[in-house]
Amino acid sequence: MNAEQLFDQVKKKQSFLCVGLDGELAKLPDHLRDIEFPLFEFNRQIIDATHDLVIAFKPNIAFYECLGTSGWQQLEFTVQYIRKHYPDILIIADAKRGDIGNTATKYAATFFRHLNCDAVTVAPYMGSDSVLPFLEYPGKWVVLLALTSNQGADDFQFLNTGNHERLFETVLRKSLQWGNSENMMYVVGANRASLLLKVREIVPDHFLLIPGIGAQGGDLSEVTEYGMNSQCGLIVNSSRAIIYADSTIRFSAAARENALAVQQQMSSILKDRGMV
Amino acid sequence: MNAEQLFDQVKKKQSFLCVGLDGELAKLPDHLRDIEFPLFEFNRQIIDATHDLVIAFKPNIAFYECLGTSGWQQLEFTVQYIRKHYPDILIIADAKRGDIGNTATKYAATFFRHLNCDAVTVAPYMGSDSVLPFLEYPGKWVVLLALTSNQGADDFQFLNTGNHERLFETVLRKSLQWGNSENMMYVVGANRASLLLKVREIVPDHFLLIPGIGAQGGDLSEVTEYGMNSQCGLIVNSSRAIIYADSTIRFSAAARENALAVQQQMSSILKDRGMV
Repeated sequence: MNAEQLFDQVKKKQSFLCVGLDGELAKLPDHLRDIEFPLFEFNRQIIDATHDLVIAFKPNIAFYECLGTSGWQQLEFTVQYIRKHYPDILIIADAKRGDIGNTATKYAATFFRHLNCDAVTVAPYMGSDSVLPFLEYPGKWVVLLALTSNQGADDFQFLNTGNHERLFETVLRKSLQWGNSENMMYVVGANRASLLLKVREIVPDHFLLIPGIGAQGGDLSEVTEYGMNSQCGLIVNSSRAIIYADSTIRFSAAARENALAVQQQMSSILKDRGMV
Repeated sequence: MNAEQLFDQVKKKQSFLCVGLDGELAKLPDHLRDIEFPLFEFNRQIIDATHDLVIAFKPNIAFYECLGTSGWQQLEFTVQYIRKHYPDILIIADAKRGDIGNTATKYAATFFRHLNCDAVTVAPYMGSDSVLPFLEYPGKWVVLLALTSNQGADDFQFLNTGNHERLFETVLRKSLQWGNSENMMYVVGANRASLLLKVREIVPDHFLLIPGIGAQGGDLSEVTEYGMNSQCGLIVNSSRAIIYADSTIRFSAAARENALAVQQQMSSILKDRGMV
């Protein structure tokens, strides 16, 4: 999927919402816990209930890996299900991988060839050769960690690296040598909204993946005020606030209600900006 | 396994060698390719042929993930096999994970509880809460990326972060607030031998995991000259130079020969230093 097709989805659905598929067995509705593939069944119902309101789904790989072989199987089922029933939806593997070139090639094959996701989150610490192998797949995306939403982001990402620039800005600037706005996006936490201005100075055209709306406390209107560009340029993720909207048999209906509330807010923002 | 037990292994085996279990289907000996679990069978023979010469085995998770469910199964079989037959050997999951606290907890459960590895490599970019959940397991180890062996390391790890300190030094120094020499090690590439002096100024007592001997060109005598401490403090990894020593039916015998050559060099270094 290229950037234009992604923007087409935004306009069609009047949404730039991504739902994070980060289910935990202990938090699933009781009636799903004893079936063979509880995480997949949970995802399937969330996907069916929200597909017309979202442009992307983002499974965080940790939540599957911690279940071992069965977890990987349910991750595969989930991606296949989205591919089959909703082929226009972007699938982001939230994996935050980063390793030497030889190994990064394997991770790229895992997420792009084996799993057939559209995008994968990648960590920048190991530099160019840990990122470049992911960029060799036409139509696929690297989503590079720039400024994350967690407290620990303060430890290194704000270090002054010279030239009045902080590490996250250096990461953004350096990465422009590796990819472009057709194969690279960036993670910028929603709780860093005011810093989106700085981010947009360096990467005005790229899509940004914005986690932290909902459970992590980010504010949608601030994020759009500072981060939106003329092609939208934002994919805003919400996980827990949507998938755990309700813990009973009506969890997916409740997930839809919460997703719909966010989508309606997004629709009015897009209308205000004349994009739809 | 604690640091004293690890040093006991070093003395007993007169070795500080780690073998990286990074098999690729396309590089396996022909006679293994058509069996049900080729990677596990390859690993099993390498493990049996080298177990008395090594203190650690290090599967890099990418090489298993890229095979999907079957890959995870073969990773599980491999770890279980080492646990059962050679319980004194440290198992390092080379995963280079790093995510927000909530998610890092899941990765820690994956590698320490589900897979029952002893150590896992972790990326520092996201800071404290991406590392701390791994430190909650007594007897387990975080191996934090500090100074990696790849070319891309030059992109960010050497950035001057103020106070005459580079990013990798800031990572080392900051991480001392999170763990200690009983639950944290660091990755320092073998090709950065002269910088080991700098590393040792900040973390004199910690074990260092040194990749890059062999195929990546690092030199063992330099590494030990600059990086060894009184409790050895080094785990030196070799992957391709050992596991691909030969591509015929005698691959494991050839792997043993190459591992033995390194172990003998290590033995003589340990003797020179009066440690054995």
